[in-house]
Amino acid sequence: MTLDTSPKRRGRRAKHADADAAPTRKVDYRTLRNPFPLMSVFSEDRIEAMHNTALDVLERLGIKVLLPEARALFRAGGARVNDSTEMVHIGRDMVKAALAIAPRRIDCRAGARDRDITLELGNLIFQPGAGAPHATDLSRGRRPGDAKSYVELTQLTQHFDVLHMVPPLIEPQDIPLNLRHYFTMQTQMTQTDKLPFVYARGTPQVQQSFELLRDFRGLTDDEFHSAPHCYTIINTNSPRQIDTPMAQGLIDFARARQVSIVTPFTLMGAMGPITVAGAITLSHAEALAAITLTQLAQPGAPVCYGTFTSNVDMKSGAPAFGTPEHFQASVAAGQLARRIGLPWRGASGSAANINDAQAANETQFGSWGCLLAGATVIVHAAGWIEGGLTVSYEKLITDMEVLQMVAELCAGVSATDADIGLSALEEVQPGGHFFGAQHTLERYQSEFYEPLIGDWSNFGTWTERGAQDANARATHKWQEILAGFRPPAINPDRAAALNDAIVRGTEAGGALPES
Amino acid sequence: MTLDTSPKRRGRRAKHADADAAPTRKVDYRTLRNPFPLMSVFSEDRIEAMHNTALDVLERLGIKVLLPEARALFRAGGARVNDSTEMVHIGRDMVKAALAIAPRRIDCRAGARDRDITLELGNLIFQPGAGAPHATDLSRGRRPGDAKSYVELTQLTQHFDVLHMVPPLIEPQDIPLNLRHYFTMQTQMTQTDKLPFVYARGTPQVQQSFELLRDFRGLTDDEFHSAPHCYTIINTNSPRQIDTPMAQGLIDFARARQVSIVTPFTLMGAMGPITVAGAITLSHAEALAAITLTQLAQPGAPVCYGTFTSNVDMKSGAPAFGTPEHFQASVAAGQLARRIGLPWRGASGSAANINDAQAANETQFGSWGCLLAGATVIVHAAGWIEGGLTVSYEKLITDMEVLQMVAELCAGVSATDADIGLSALEEVQPGGHFFGAQHTLERYQSEFYEPLIGDWSNFGTWTERGAQDANARATHKWQEILAGFRPPAINPDRAAALNDAIVRGTEAGGALPES
Repeated sequence: MTLDTSPKRRGRRAKHADADAAPTRKVDYRTLRNPFPLMSVFSEDRIEAMHNTALDVLERLGIKVLLPEARALFRAGGARVNDSTEMVHIGRDMVKAALAIAPRRIDCRAGARDRDITLELGNLIFQPGAGAPHATDLSRGRRPGDAKSYVELTQLTQHFDVLHMVPPLIEPQDIPLNLRHYFTMQTQMTQTDKLPFVYARGTPQVQQSFELLRDFRGLTDDEFHSAPHCYTIINTNSPRQIDTPMAQGLIDFARARQVSIVTPFTLMGAMGPITVAGAITLSHAEALAAITLTQLAQPGAPVCYGTFTSNVDMKSGAPAFGTPEHFQASVAAGQLARRIGLPWRGASGSAANINDAQAANETQFGSWGCLLAGATVIVHAAGWIEGGLTVSYEKLITDMEVLQMVAELCAGVSATDADIGLSALEEVQPGGHFFGAQHTLERYQSEFYEPLIGDWSNFGTWTERGAQDANARATHKWQEILAGFRPPAINPDRAAALNDAIVRGTEAGGALPES
Repeated sequence: MTLDTSPKRRGRRAKHADADAAPTRKVDYRTLRNPFPLMSVFSEDRIEAMHNTALDVLERLGIKVLLPEARALFRAGGARVNDSTEMVHIGRDMVKAALAIAPRRIDCRAGARDRDITLELGNLIFQPGAGAPHATDLSRGRRPGDAKSYVELTQLTQHFDVLHMVPPLIEPQDIPLNLRHYFTMQTQMTQTDKLPFVYARGTPQVQQSFELLRDFRGLTDDEFHSAPHCYTIINTNSPRQIDTPMAQGLIDFARARQVSIVTPFTLMGAMGPITVAGAITLSHAEALAAITLTQLAQPGAPVCYGTFTSNVDMKSGAPAFGTPEHFQASVAAGQLARRIGLPWRGASGSAANINDAQAANETQFGSWGCLLAGATVIVHAAGWIEGGLTVSYEKLITDMEVLQMVAELCAGVSATDADIGLSALEEVQPGGHFFGAQHTLERYQSEFYEPLIGDWSNFGTWTERGAQDANARATHKWQEILAGFRPPAINPDRAAALNDAIVRGTEAGGALPES
């Protein structure tokens, strides 16, 4: 028998269910635990060899640290430091001591309690694409990131429960550099109640950002320092270098007890060795150096392990994402993260230039690598194309479908005797159907995930409705979300005070990024 | 620091690698073992409850079997049979006895030894989309399946090593029903050397197909029966019914010791209970009944367990694929397959009407469900859209990229001391790059997977080259493959004899399908 899924048959069967019933399914996407079995690509002894090689690299080869204050902290902690070469040799004992006091669990305070997140192994936290110089959508085309795009993409991030942290999706290049942190902080505080991001671009911007957030939340300095209220991403300059703003950020965030997510970007064959094992070993060494610096600056400071390791096209040097090598690197990083016990971030992504089948396949493949690796935070999980040069509004939506389906798997499914439904099997006779069965009628409004933009209509109906592809439907979806967007309720006095503080800061010249 | 992946930088770095070097990577895609950790959605005791409920269903509720010969076999095996209602009540002892003698390992003989496959738990075998009434491609549009499409899609299946069996991708509706099996057998024998498929559409067609294959391979009857040389797919008529051609196929293939892959199609809420647990329990019961019939017809006959269980849109009745429920059903089926120890088939798929982001995401999501479920054979893993009503040439290519990336993960990656590359870490100084490192030069032609149609060029280059999306590139790819297609070397005498046999059979009227 061939599989009969003809419209006629579907239609006939469909009559048995109430076509007008609104779905009543409610699934919590805000707090996820990873439900997947964890994968390994290397044996435990090879992971140990990679860990020990990373310790050798830090101790014998050393790492270049451009910030004198950071070198001073390493020296005070027992490292061998050469200020003329700026090289720091970190003993394995120092790394071991840092790993012993770095927290395994980090409870982060968002703008609302039901948006709080906990960074620890086993939890699953998603972020959309971050740090792109461009934004693109089908109605307005590809353009340099600007304030409008930054606000809209932050609102879309707020809208979806399955996105748990706010990254800087694109760079608002129409805002002056000395005032950009005011704009990004104000947007995050007023348009979303999820955990905000602060760029580590020098102490002045960081301190001003901390103060805005502290006052907006009505906290004293001590209260602000009592828990993480924001986070930053720290990229080392692979290979073996930590530049001034990154080192300063590690110190400033550690002392304020805010979260640093350490992310060496060791592209295989470019900034890292060409092998998965080599690139991940280098990434591990750099992450351990950065983690050690945070603990020297502030024992017990919240810090996240991380990596962003994929490969490049050896013909052009172009970076690639969602490749088998990227997948294996994520899994290897997960093995090392479990070895040291810290929460960690992995990353998905795509090098495609538009939101086509390549873009969808690369991002989902990259996300599965992180999921099977047990990544605590998965960055660039939606909307990120061109290897990070652009965030696509449509891809943000089509990737969201995948993240919501993963969240549905986190919720699990039950198999009670009632679920198995022997009564239904008794009720429906051979050759019959279950549309009208009691077991079905009791569940049909809530049993299944309702797709975000997936269109399951048959070819005839789909054609009559305009033959819209996923991108066309995604365009309607993000436009509909933005049109109906309501920011979270905020205290008007604090909003006014925030505004006044930014006006005063602007008059005082704000603060330029430092490098 | 923001992540600098600008074209300028890529270009500069790229110079360090030889842009003209041809890749020398060789990875065996023909024999795969599943490298992923296996997932569970239900506890062992609930799986046991589902298994026992399935046994209760067969024993107490019974299953309708339309073929008298099959009922006679069940009766002779100890079942309680009512010929007027056509109901067969199969005791759990009969099922247990059948499972005890059904082979755990099935070595299948393809047209060439290096195409042989072994069906057993742990192996990983891919098939493209099967059984579609339509074919579509961007150059010729959507049309009813015809001989030309059947031949082309069979050639594309032959071309890719990561596809291990030949399914009937589309139905060649321009070939008369009484001669269609001649056409499909001749095409499979002359255009591919992978394991061929024979439709179970009644004994006359099946026997004629067996004879053509036996003679083409130069085998005696005993030799042909000594090992599986082809396979069929058996869909039960869920719920609880096995129709005449399906029952006849189970008997005919078992007696000829050829492979039956049993696949109940229990769509949740339609032909099966609305719950994952209920639909899989029904699927399990029907599969056990079919497997029992094969062992009654021929003890030790090769038979594969299987399921195709997804959900429908309860508003329209339209089937959906690559959903969270489909994923969970695959994982549950994997748990039951391990419970009985037989190789089994799962299925991916998509309900999208074109090869867009929805199509890519649904198929990859469905495939991951099968991979984490430990499916031995994954059907509809490439090219299958519209819930099986159409096979898309372009989607066949874009899905192939994902399957090849999975095959790369099957090959694994090593972490020897040389791979970790301390020498490279010593050679490259802080802030430098690895493009010119000895460690890189020794490996750059073979270290990375080379994409099939993935385009990693930057936006500027991609635009200059015509801004082709994945579907446009996929069109070039399948056209290029078909233009250069060379069928496997075959014995000209056997090809001539095959042709003569078909001419004689045609003159004799061939054989009509039976129902």
